[in-house]
Amino acid sequence: MDKIKVGIVGYGNIGRGAEKAIRDSSDFELKAIITRRPPHELRTETPSALKIHTDDALSLKDQVDMMILCGGSATDLPEQGPRFAEHFNTVDSYDTHAKIPDYFNKMNEISKKAGLISLISAGWDPGLFSMYKCLGQAILPRGSGCAFWGKGVSQGHSDAIRRIDGVEAAVQYTIPIQEAIDKARAGESSLLTTREKHLRECYVVAEEGADKAEIENTIKTMPYYFADYDTTVQFISKDEYDKDHKGMPHGGFVVHSGETDAGRHTMEFSLNLDHNAEFTASILVAFARAAYRYYKEGRTGALTVLDIPLTYLLPESDEELRKELL
Amino acid sequence: MDKIKVGIVGYGNIGRGAEKAIRDSSDFELKAIITRRPPHELRTETPSALKIHTDDALSLKDQVDMMILCGGSATDLPEQGPRFAEHFNTVDSYDTHAKIPDYFNKMNEISKKAGLISLISAGWDPGLFSMYKCLGQAILPRGSGCAFWGKGVSQGHSDAIRRIDGVEAAVQYTIPIQEAIDKARAGESSLLTTREKHLRECYVVAEEGADKAEIENTIKTMPYYFADYDTTVQFISKDEYDKDHKGMPHGGFVVHSGETDAGRHTMEFSLNLDHNAEFTASILVAFARAAYRYYKEGRTGALTVLDIPLTYLLPESDEELRKELL
Repeated sequence: MDKIKVGIVGYGNIGRGAEKAIRDSSDFELKAIITRRPPHELRTETPSALKIHTDDALSLKDQVDMMILCGGSATDLPEQGPRFAEHFNTVDSYDTHAKIPDYFNKMNEISKKAGLISLISAGWDPGLFSMYKCLGQAILPRGSGCAFWGKGVSQGHSDAIRRIDGVEAAVQYTIPIQEAIDKARAGESSLLTTREKHLRECYVVAEEGADKAEIENTIKTMPYYFADYDTTVQFISKDEYDKDHKGMPHGGFVVHSGETDAGRHTMEFSLNLDHNAEFTASILVAFARAAYRYYKEGRTGALTVLDIPLTYLLPESDEELRKELL
Repeated sequence: MDKIKVGIVGYGNIGRGAEKAIRDSSDFELKAIITRRPPHELRTETPSALKIHTDDALSLKDQVDMMILCGGSATDLPEQGPRFAEHFNTVDSYDTHAKIPDYFNKMNEISKKAGLISLISAGWDPGLFSMYKCLGQAILPRGSGCAFWGKGVSQGHSDAIRRIDGVEAAVQYTIPIQEAIDKARAGESSLLTTREKHLRECYVVAEEGADKAEIENTIKTMPYYFADYDTTVQFISKDEYDKDHKGMPHGGFVVHSGETDAGRHTMEFSLNLDHNAEFTASILVAFARAAYRYYKEGRTGALTVLDIPLTYLLPESDEELRKELL
């Protein structure tokens, strides 16, 4: 069988994770890593992969079956997605929930016109969590689903703290509250407020002479990020930060609880991740396989994880999978 | 939108559950309940549904879009499946794991020839658990998955005890062992033996004068059912049995644990069910919706839960689902 030739766009945490996941999947070949940095400066793990500047990406047009877009959702993907979808099949982990319908429509129009495919939002939330919510709602319509995150590092919230004057380093852990979990299991998730679901725990390294009370107040009153939550702020030394807070653990779970006449049923899906970026990259690679199979069937346009039959995610034949998994 | 007209074949625990699940889904209409018993003896909940003897099922040929087959896997479905697939689109929860490939091939041949669709093995194991194993394997190929059942009532094992001389009533609970769960989470599930994974806890009502020691010995040494497990047997009164052991709670979970370079990740899916049959029936109804959509796209033949895009399980449009779930 021909290998699926892929390119990685962006060589940050997710891009490096995608490189490893491709190495672990024998049906893929990593053709190129595309970067905005001077390509010769990249220290990659795959000797055979080309290093290409993003301005020269079009030179790969007939050499790459799928482009795995590894940029962030805030500024990278809104630009990277449409630009690459015009010339390549793409998969990404776009995660700005509220803007997904718009992003989908844009990517759909571009990739339809190009006769190509673009699979969007293939991370864990949105992504895997969306799949579980869908299953829960389909099987137990007299019920409700609820997602919890953590305990884990929120990159966005950590960044928000780091931008405060006087902060040298910071990390923010999102922690689900047990009482809220119990309520979700009992089918009462629709009653939960934002504050009741998660705590935000912040560890901050202050610059010398900084006003700690002012930093703490700025964090706790920051609109959208912290004001709606119970937030704790603890100041620590740089040494302690380096020793205990540089990992990327994360996790979370979806609880769907519903009734039938004879009682209550709960379906739960949980993730416990040592390294958020490598796990997300592994999802992207599995869905790149699925998207390419879709493309080879002659389909075009945008799609999401909800459009993918699960057999498409694995290289084995449908017959082998039935035998092994059913 | 036209409602999906369905028939229920078999009016036992699952058939009655399917009737309730159809009542809870406004895009379905229950057209008929098909039974081997004298139809007028059935006490059904849906006044508008026809009661039809199984010998007369063909009279429904142009009135029913999907037949939901609610028979058991040991003797009902091997006969019911092929017979109905010749004339109707079908969905079933066939669960004899080892025989699924054969059953699939038989159903595929018949329904292909008839220009119809048959979705097989759409319960929770096989079924939902198969979907989760598939996802785990696709995302974390350097890992392994493991299913646990319980705490819950095993109907087959309970029946096996009831067939022993001197037993008036009995129930068997399957109980996962915590040490084994911990090993699966650590990625060591392939080392687990059958005995290490589950306990079998039996509650038995003996007939008056029966030899309890003999019953206990017969249970514990019963090949396949109990001999490979640590089994406990407790004799109880009929009153206690009626009071505490007549429910149908069940549950179970799939653990997939795998590594990437930076660490270990676990994905878990768990079910906690007050009523096994009603939950299974709810799965069948959701997949009946999906199978019918497949059929309307012009596809024919057998398929499984692994072939179904998740959007097909819900009546909402793909656009609505993207907005709501992603």
